[in-house]
Amino acid sequence: MTLLRPQPLTKEAFAPFGDVIESVDVAALNINQGFAERFNNLASVDVTAEDGSTNVSLFTAQPRPQPIVIDLMERHPLGSQLFYPLQDEPWMVLVCRDPQDSESYSAFMAHGRQGVNYKRNVWHFPLLVFGADSRFLVVDRIGPGKNLVEVAVSPFSLQPQTA
Amino acid sequence: MTLLRPQPLTKEAFAPFGDVIESVDVAALNINQGFAERFNNLASVDVTAEDGSTNVSLFTAQPRPQPIVIDLMERHPLGSQLFYPLQDEPWMVLVCRDPQDSESYSAFMAHGRQGVNYKRNVWHFPLLVFGADSRFLVVDRIGPGKNLVEVAVSPFSLQPQTA
Repeated sequence: MTLLRPQPLTKEAFAPFGDVIESVDVAALNINQGFAERFNNLASVDVTAEDGSTNVSLFTAQPRPQPIVIDLMERHPLGSQLFYPLQDEPWMVLVCRDPQDSESYSAFMAHGRQGVNYKRNVWHFPLLVFGADSRFLVVDRIGPGKNLVEVAVSPFSLQPQTA
Repeated sequence: MTLLRPQPLTKEAFAPFGDVIESVDVAALNINQGFAERFNNLASVDVTAEDGSTNVSLFTAQPRPQPIVIDLMERHPLGSQLFYPLQDEPWMVLVCRDPQDSESYSAFMAHGRQGVNYKRNVWHFPLLVFGADSRFLVVDRIGPGKNLVEVAVSPFSLQPQTA
């Protein structure tokens, strides 16, 4: 069974798959009479296809047993999907270009001040967290049409980096 | 000088001004092969007027000196504006129906697992936080047109509840 190890999440490495939402290396706008900084426009939210609109949800995720077995991947043909962690704890992102091509997979370790926004149709695995009851704010699409495609893949295991 | 005291933030009390984003009393959808719960569609994101689209940003806010002096209010005529805290710490929300009518103001204490989404044109005060470097994820509008109206108001002070 192939064993995939994650790399640190960076905007550059993740660019083919979507946005990394973080304030690092973003010029801040000074707002609110000097009492706040705004790091503006960090994600390409793409949800309006087929009369879709923006959906804001909360997710609470549980850790999977380790080693984590990957046996399916999913994509959303009608909209982007953004996840931002609500605790300052690491989590993990798994994407691929072709679910049937093991060489096309990339795993990323995100820290607790990094979110991601998957582009439409980017293959990804559901939320991968390490702590119980890990909370996320999610910005994706609501509207008519079928917006979930899941595919079974030859199982392999994902070995997170341990601190 | 009038002194305004906040009430606890609830969906019912805040309904005239917008949405409270929280998982309490929301039926969870079981997703991700049982490894996550989704609390779906918690806010009415209203950003498409005049060719607008959804903007996701990070804010870092600083506390104002207490007692907090309120001398302006603002509204966004072209879009809703959503704030969700990224630390599990209380914060405060101040809204009104008419900036020149002191009787029309309402202040709310939000806990750290509550966000708000101001409807278009709802008068509100900028972020009010108690801890240094308080982080928020913000979902509002990006696009052409003038989307900020500020008005000076007769100064009054806001006295937060202390724990």
